[in-house]
Amino acid sequence: MKYEEFTIEGRNAVLEAFRSGKTIDKVLILKGCQDGPVLSIAREARKHDTLIQYVPKERLASLSRTGKHQGVIAYAAAYAYASVEDMFALAEERGEPPFFFLLDGIEDPHNLGAIIRTANLAGAHGVIIPKRRAVGLTAVVAKASAGALNYTPVARVANLTAVMEELKKKGMWFVCADMGGTLMYDLDLKGPIGLVIGNEGDGVSRLVKETCDMTASIPMKGDIDSLNASVAAGVLAYEIVRQRGYQDKL
Amino acid sequence: MKYEEFTIEGRNAVLEAFRSGKTIDKVLILKGCQDGPVLSIAREARKHDTLIQYVPKERLASLSRTGKHQGVIAYAAAYAYASVEDMFALAEERGEPPFFFLLDGIEDPHNLGAIIRTANLAGAHGVIIPKRRAVGLTAVVAKASAGALNYTPVARVANLTAVMEELKKKGMWFVCADMGGTLMYDLDLKGPIGLVIGNEGDGVSRLVKETCDMTASIPMKGDIDSLNASVAAGVLAYEIVRQRGYQDKL
Repeated sequence: MKYEEFTIEGRNAVLEAFRSGKTIDKVLILKGCQDGPVLSIAREARKHDTLIQYVPKERLASLSRTGKHQGVIAYAAAYAYASVEDMFALAEERGEPPFFFLLDGIEDPHNLGAIIRTANLAGAHGVIIPKRRAVGLTAVVAKASAGALNYTPVARVANLTAVMEELKKKGMWFVCADMGGTLMYDLDLKGPIGLVIGNEGDGVSRLVKETCDMTASIPMKGDIDSLNASVAAGVLAYEIVRQRGYQDKL
Repeated sequence: MKYEEFTIEGRNAVLEAFRSGKTIDKVLILKGCQDGPVLSIAREARKHDTLIQYVPKERLASLSRTGKHQGVIAYAAAYAYASVEDMFALAEERGEPPFFFLLDGIEDPHNLGAIIRTANLAGAHGVIIPKRRAVGLTAVVAKASAGALNYTPVARVANLTAVMEELKKKGMWFVCADMGGTLMYDLDLKGPIGLVIGNEGDGVSRLVKETCDMTASIPMKGDIDSLNASVAAGVLAYEIVRQRGYQDKL
């Protein structure tokens, strides 16, 4: 994985980026624009499950750095995404039961970076993020991850619950962080596990929560509602580390 | 504690702020300016142990919002600082052994806010920060603390090690987070304890580390060097919570 160019402007450049296999997080297309090249770009975007937004001329103009966007601006990921299979491969390579992070809509790039950093150090085999309503692997995330993106695979999936159902068939268990849950110390968090962390403001979404096998709560001895999302992820991840037997790797 | 005005410009306004007892984090004074009112301001600043910076005219002009700084701009804390005595009082009120956080130079306001949030929820009785080379209670910190600043006292001290020596005489123990330390699970973290967290880049400074009784390390199973400072603070704080008996407060 390495840094790539982030913003791609102009019809040919964007089309070529798709065809070369670059991961495009989002394409902005001029509203009402219907000619051949633009339709091809929209087709490529759909094929790769890339988010398309149709925006007015003024918006495109204000976002364009080159002034030569020709009605199309694409945003490439700063890092290449991995697949869930890569994560299983890593777990197998290390001879450990799979340990994944699943982030249900983390929006703050500093939080995402800090969580990937934690995933790396807690010995997780990968991080799964959704395609929509969540920040992707931007340059800010890469910086906040302090290098962890070079080691810890991050996969981006269209449907988090569908992936969870698939992984359950492979024997994985899912635990989500939620205030109403069982105290984390009282849960058995060993074995093949997926740790689900919710959105900064709204927590874990209903469907994802229903797909989880367990709900874990962190003891709250204070006055406010919740920990910062990346701190909560860290505390839960290290409870998993403690239960799984931290000595193994020392 | 409540929000106050943050930037104060003009000689009378700054002098009045000092005399009314407002907490001023820093005063910028025009370089070479030596007249009576300015000397009075510098005297007040010294009396209150406020940081003074002498800056060129251009710097002041670029920082001034009103254009009427008259050679002086002061930065007030967004929240009032508490004292270490307030923290002891809170511990006593709750009938618990004191549990403080000491931050040795946290520079990122998001990290400071997240750590104060963690201190609140982990049941700590206060957070101690140094006056220099660290972020104070700015508006960004207040927001990132998610309301915790309304409940958890934060004291700002001139000399962290001097305060630690004082607190040791009162029976407190200090543990700092550092990679070379004893695995946190193997330390006894019960009793009156101060958790010391180092700077984002440089960790805990030498003198502060030497003043600590114990050095705790978080198990690191990954490839990179360290966790985000607020995540590390959270993981260690919750190891203390676990050892102190989390059930007490549930």
